[in-house]
Amino acid sequence: MSENVVYVGNKSPMHYVLAVMIQFNRGSDKVVLKARGRAISRAVDVAEIVKNQFLPGQVESSVTIGTEEVGEGDQKRNVSTIEIVLTKKE
Amino acid sequence: MSENVVYVGNKSPMHYVLAVMIQFNRGSDKVVLKARGRAISRAVDVAEIVKNQFLPGQVESSVTIGTEEVGEGDQKRNVSTIEIVLTKKE
Repeated sequence: MSENVVYVGNKSPMHYVLAVMIQFNRGSDKVVLKARGRAISRAVDVAEIVKNQFLPGQVESSVTIGTEEVGEGDQKRNVSTIEIVLTKKE
Repeated sequence: MSENVVYVGNKSPMHYVLAVMIQFNRGSDKVVLKARGRAISRAVDVAEIVKNQFLPGQVESSVTIGTEEVGEGDQKRNVSTIEIVLTKKE
C-alpha cells in the first residue's frame, strides 16, 4: 500500500491538502489527486499548496489529463479529468 | 516559428479550440495552452476537445503545473498555473 487516491470535489482546497498530508504522514511515498470538470483547478491548487507550503522541495508532481463520459442516454456528455501524481523524492 | 502560445481565459472553450486549430493549420507542430486559476479547467477542456474531436489520434499532450505570485504589496497572493503542450505526432 504505497499509492493512495484523493478525489478532489467542491470542498475547500485545505480539506484535500489535509487528506494528502495524512497519507504522506502514514508513510505513503505516492498520493494521487483525481478531479473532474470544474474541480480540476482546485486539484492543481491542492498539489501546489502541498508542494510549496507543506513539503517544499520534497515532492514531485506529474500530470495527465483525459476525458470521461458521464450520464446516460440523452444526458451523455464528456467531462475532462485530471490526475496529479505526487511523489516524495528519496 | 514552430511554437505558439494560446492564453486561456474566460471565453467559451470553442474560442480557444479555434485559436489552437488556426495555429496547427498554419503549420505549427506545437501549440502551448496557458491558463491560471479558474481557467485551468477550461484549458484542459480545450486540450481534450482538440485531441478527441478535431485531431483524433494526431496530437499528444504534456502537462506541467506551477504557481505564480500576482498582485502587489498587501494584495499579493499565489495563483496556480497550467501549461499544456500539444504536439502533432509525426
